[in-house]
Amino acid sequence: MKGYITLTDASLRDGNHAVRHQLTIGQIVRYAQAADEAGINIVEVGHGNGLGASSALLGKAASTDADMLASVREKLRHTKLGVHFIPGLGKISDIEVALEAGVDVFRLASHCTEANITRRFIEYVRHVGKTAYGVLMMSHMADAREILDQSRLMQSYGAHAIVLMDSAGFSTPELVKEKVETLIDGLSIPIGYHAHNNLGLAVANSIAAAESGATLLDACVCGFGAGAGNTQLETLVPVLERHRYQLGTDFARIARLAKCADEVLPIRTPHIPIANIITGVFGLFSGFVPHIERLASELKIDPFELCQALAQRKLVAGQEDVIVEEAHRLAAMSAQSVAVR
Amino acid sequence: MKGYITLTDASLRDGNHAVRHQLTIGQIVRYAQAADEAGINIVEVGHGNGLGASSALLGKAASTDADMLASVREKLRHTKLGVHFIPGLGKISDIEVALEAGVDVFRLASHCTEANITRRFIEYVRHVGKTAYGVLMMSHMADAREILDQSRLMQSYGAHAIVLMDSAGFSTPELVKEKVETLIDGLSIPIGYHAHNNLGLAVANSIAAAESGATLLDACVCGFGAGAGNTQLETLVPVLERHRYQLGTDFARIARLAKCADEVLPIRTPHIPIANIITGVFGLFSGFVPHIERLASELKIDPFELCQALAQRKLVAGQEDVIVEEAHRLAAMSAQSVAVR
Repeated sequence: MKGYITLTDASLRDGNHAVRHQLTIGQIVRYAQAADEAGINIVEVGHGNGLGASSALLGKAASTDADMLASVREKLRHTKLGVHFIPGLGKISDIEVALEAGVDVFRLASHCTEANITRRFIEYVRHVGKTAYGVLMMSHMADAREILDQSRLMQSYGAHAIVLMDSAGFSTPELVKEKVETLIDGLSIPIGYHAHNNLGLAVANSIAAAESGATLLDACVCGFGAGAGNTQLETLVPVLERHRYQLGTDFARIARLAKCADEVLPIRTPHIPIANIITGVFGLFSGFVPHIERLASELKIDPFELCQALAQRKLVAGQEDVIVEEAHRLAAMSAQSVAVR
Repeated sequence: MKGYITLTDASLRDGNHAVRHQLTIGQIVRYAQAADEAGINIVEVGHGNGLGASSALLGKAASTDADMLASVREKLRHTKLGVHFIPGLGKISDIEVALEAGVDVFRLASHCTEANITRRFIEYVRHVGKTAYGVLMMSHMADAREILDQSRLMQSYGAHAIVLMDSAGFSTPELVKEKVETLIDGLSIPIGYHAHNNLGLAVANSIAAAESGATLLDACVCGFGAGAGNTQLETLVPVLERHRYQLGTDFARIARLAKCADEVLPIRTPHIPIANIITGVFGLFSGFVPHIERLASELKIDPFELCQALAQRKLVAGQEDVIVEEAHRLAAMSAQSVAVR
């Protein structure tokens, strides 16, 4: 096994960008609770632009920072609560509101060449004993050397970790590797990566970051986020598992979380349907998906378990009859287990 | 510069899977003509399962093979015409129909362990002087050694190239690299790769194939294809350009092709909107997209050119006023050039 990757699910913050910051308390709370049950390490919550950013110019959020954060806090048992913060949009008083609401992780962000504006806020968060990540946004606009210099500033202010954001979705795995390796060599704190999917490379870039030594990765359910969306959580997790990283969650739990997201969140960000991800993970022919969905719904069985059973039988295209057979077997087993109980 | 990559646009064949083979002649012809103008090397056309596959079991196609192929043939000036063929679904008489319609490239496919069933058909296509690719479907179900053995069979039958299909979208770049490198080492003919996006890795897998020596890549506009869809053409091309491969097309032409596809084809496959790809390619903040789209539409300017101009000015978030300024400058230049004519 490789090392442990800490996952931040940014759906309830970056996803807010995709709905003009109109996520409701009900939506936020239901998803956060499901993320907690799924074993997500950190959920990030709030206005797309972070604490204190709700305004006529950037878009008024449907709820206040205090309400969003306190409502989520109440429901989290294991998952930590995180916020995004951009100096200028947010003030110290906004951090105080977040502290009052019980936020654990503050992600203090600047444009990739302006780390110095985060100093006061990183120092403040350290001072009150909370976790402070330094976040460099639009990180493609500076070269590896400059990113290292800016990260060193944040480290010197007391940042517990540095997160590189590919805000424009410009990067390729080679560029990610170069920057993350430079930071790993030059810093003594953990490194994180936050990808966007504009070039269809968000998963590959996140994996490149991990393979280069990053231990913190951001992702969003259904890619729910600004622009082309973020790294899709449901694809990132099985690919991390394939690469033998340790996680607080697993693909089966994430598949259930995706189902919850589908019911709870107003997601229009382009993303791969969970049914297709499940067949991909198990290496099953794409053409099976309609059959699997129909049988799972008719017989009330778990499509994930059905795919698992089909994969064990190494099904190939043309064996659609075996799907029916396996589905009925699972349904019978489940009826039996109900009868025994 | 690196070597030349031959692009097969499979939208009009794999995309037919996504609409139960109901693409109309009108849709097929309009898109094929635009693909020709965009510099695509090969367009693949037909029923999702290839020549002769239209049936009650697999789905009746909206048009016959002969009509689809002859109509497209008429419109192609530079682009070659390709078909998919699975022995058993298709017969020699179907190949004769395709020859009559003027098909250039026959992609003769089998499950990854059943290459022997393609022998008669590869030999026949060679005999009539057309291009024969050997295609191994579901290529994740055999290891590199077996894939090489099966490919050697196809090579011995006379195949001009071998294309590996990741039909289930199961693969990761490491698996692609291992297989493609094994084929490059063990064969004397070109290698191609056909990815599906179930794990969000289609672009990364295609690039991994190219970096390992593959010179033929398949892609579909808007990922239009079976299941989770294929490698999205509009993301693959700029990433290939970033890696300095030579192509018969370029990203600006592909962006126009995507616009045509949006007007002409009934695409529901999840994909990244072209506006977000353009900002990603130029490294612009995602939040600019609504402003760019509004101004391009109001002032009748090309959003691609506007992004190019904004990228030259290295715009960062918060400089939305510069978008307005550049848009008006472009509109004025364009008005001036009209006046001069």
